[in-house]
Amino acid sequence: MSMNVFASVQGMQQCALGQKKAGHRIGLIPTMGFLHEGHLSLVALARKRTDWVVLSIFVNPIQFMPGEDFLQYPRNFERDEALCEQAGVDLVFYPDQKEMYSTDHSVFVEETSLSSGICGASRPGHFKGVTTVVAKLFNIVMPDVAVFGQKDAQQCRVIQRMVRDLNINVEIVVGPIVREPDGLAMSSRNRYLSPSGRKKALCLRHSLDLAEKMVQAGERTVSVIQEAVWATLSSEPEANIDYVAFLDHETLTPVLLIQRPVLLALAVRIGATRLIDNTVLYSP
Amino acid sequence: MSMNVFASVQGMQQCALGQKKAGHRIGLIPTMGFLHEGHLSLVALARKRTDWVVLSIFVNPIQFMPGEDFLQYPRNFERDEALCEQAGVDLVFYPDQKEMYSTDHSVFVEETSLSSGICGASRPGHFKGVTTVVAKLFNIVMPDVAVFGQKDAQQCRVIQRMVRDLNINVEIVVGPIVREPDGLAMSSRNRYLSPSGRKKALCLRHSLDLAEKMVQAGERTVSVIQEAVWATLSSEPEANIDYVAFLDHETLTPVLLIQRPVLLALAVRIGATRLIDNTVLYSP
Repeated sequence: MSMNVFASVQGMQQCALGQKKAGHRIGLIPTMGFLHEGHLSLVALARKRTDWVVLSIFVNPIQFMPGEDFLQYPRNFERDEALCEQAGVDLVFYPDQKEMYSTDHSVFVEETSLSSGICGASRPGHFKGVTTVVAKLFNIVMPDVAVFGQKDAQQCRVIQRMVRDLNINVEIVVGPIVREPDGLAMSSRNRYLSPSGRKKALCLRHSLDLAEKMVQAGERTVSVIQEAVWATLSSEPEANIDYVAFLDHETLTPVLLIQRPVLLALAVRIGATRLIDNTVLYSP
Repeated sequence: MSMNVFASVQGMQQCALGQKKAGHRIGLIPTMGFLHEGHLSLVALARKRTDWVVLSIFVNPIQFMPGEDFLQYPRNFERDEALCEQAGVDLVFYPDQKEMYSTDHSVFVEETSLSSGICGASRPGHFKGVTTVVAKLFNIVMPDVAVFGQKDAQQCRVIQRMVRDLNINVEIVVGPIVREPDGLAMSSRNRYLSPSGRKKALCLRHSLDLAEKMVQAGERTVSVIQEAVWATLSSEPEANIDYVAFLDHETLTPVLLIQRPVLLALAVRIGATRLIDNTVLYSP
């Protein structure tokens, strides 16, 4: 069967209802398109767990702040469509802005605790846009399983909290970060980087590597590791640090010692391009 | 089959999934209990449209403002249970507060336009509590149809907007106001009234009657009708008017002329008891 593309909310919802009636389990990968291997690895995770895999492509205006890159965000639907077909996606849901938001849209879903720090602090309102659109996509596609990437670690935790607090009957699966051969985390925004910026961006991965090695070597004190991470990032003069955060991986609250899984999350600007990356530091 | 009572979210959700798998259509009447004929009329409406009727009883703490009547709100589960059984309810969902809200609950659903006026202005935060709990109940009970009473006219419009904007696949049915023989709109809060307050509370219905008659007689100017409504309410010295509002029934925006269905909504305090009532004025 060839892949379908739906642009209408109602068509998508009816189709999902039909799949459910047929007893199929639905998987959903919400994306903003401009797909890379990171997204496609999530398709494989959904495929393992469900019978019918939907990938949504929607550059969600309400999760971009004024002055951010909503208009310039890279888009290439034809390429995305071909990649989805190759990856075995059953249906691409590709609505436009009018289809998703009425001009008098007035209902929002907001997470008020986990979303306040790191990216939420740098991008006020961002996660309210994310939770609202994901709640909508869950109601439209009615997935049994939805797959998100660990690269957006805070987003994963916020979505998991939304599912818990609103009693949404969707299993959230988090796929590992997929990296370029040299270690740069895959991101649609990498295409903003100049060839020289592309090389400088490796400082993110290098600083995470160093932190992992320090923890493996027995270091547990966050301030010591943090200093090393800052030094690595700062050795690249064109890297502007937005944040370096060490957070409990469950609660996203700051920690001083590594005694449980700790999320080390970075946001760094290389020129005008804001990149994020993270790793979970363990001390078994 | 005798009626079931479920207190657990997980049990309720699993049971609803089973009903859906069996091809049954689910009806839901969300209530705060202390049931009266108004609620039971909604059961009949759900029964007509669905195969399996769930009535939820939950006095939702987050829709009460500080200083409001959350603790004193009347509760009588045994009586409610018997009324539900008589009315042919299939399942009563009766969770406690801990079951509905984790101590670190942090996700809310908020409507930001229709909920700002009348009751939303008098009770800031009230509708955020309502939309959050109704979104949760929809995810837990998974109804095809949910029935609400027109007595809470603004609540009905806010819920309809939530369903539209979050693409929730639930049909909202609104049941007409049910009144005592003398015209007082049924409400669990009527039991707060003293015998003399009970008589004074009739000024609400009398003022709505007068407005309806004026419109039937051809009056279209809101300011003229409003003056008559205020005069009727003010003739009762112990009635303290919270609001008298003439609003477009769709958009809940104030109107000056009655050219389309107009919601005339009242909130009046009789002693310490805040009562609401409304009617839709037509000019066919």
